[in-house]
Amino acid sequence: MKKVIVHVTLKEGVLDPQGQTIETSLHSLGFTEVEEVRTGKTIELLLDNHDNVEARVQDMCTKLLANPVIEDYRVNVEEAVQS
Amino acid sequence: MKKVIVHVTLKEGVLDPQGQTIETSLHSLGFTEVEEVRTGKTIELLLDNHDNVEARVQDMCTKLLANPVIEDYRVNVEEAVQS
Repeated sequence: MKKVIVHVTLKEGVLDPQGQTIETSLHSLGFTEVEEVRTGKTIELLLDNHDNVEARVQDMCTKLLANPVIEDYRVNVEEAVQS
Repeated sequence: MKKVIVHVTLKEGVLDPQGQTIETSLHSLGFTEVEEVRTGKTIELLLDNHDNVEARVQDMCTKLLANPVIEDYRVNVEEAVQS
């Protein structure tokens, strides 16, 4: 089995309302040193062994996991795990 | 300025409906090698220099950024960035 982690982040310049909400809340809790907050998501995939794992996951990203218009993504293929 | 990334993931054993939905969708797209999908979030903070950045961010996590009942979190203090 292979573990692959996909990191999806908003592209530079794309508005991040969730990040802004977190920033406002942190300020109201007294964390005034916070200048900016950007949110993203991680998708951890456990995959059966496949010959071309990275290419398959790239394909999953373009078809489902990331929106290429507003998001960037990065694929990390990690060590094999015991099934 | 300091950049800090907080990685928030669901605790082991906590149901991940979003992950299950992604898994079902990937299977319907033909990616049958997918065994399991777990989702998480990343929160990227840009902070003014503060003497105790790591402790402050830990405090932000317990107060706002992560739900200690169902989530684990990890704090990465990265290199200083130009303001």
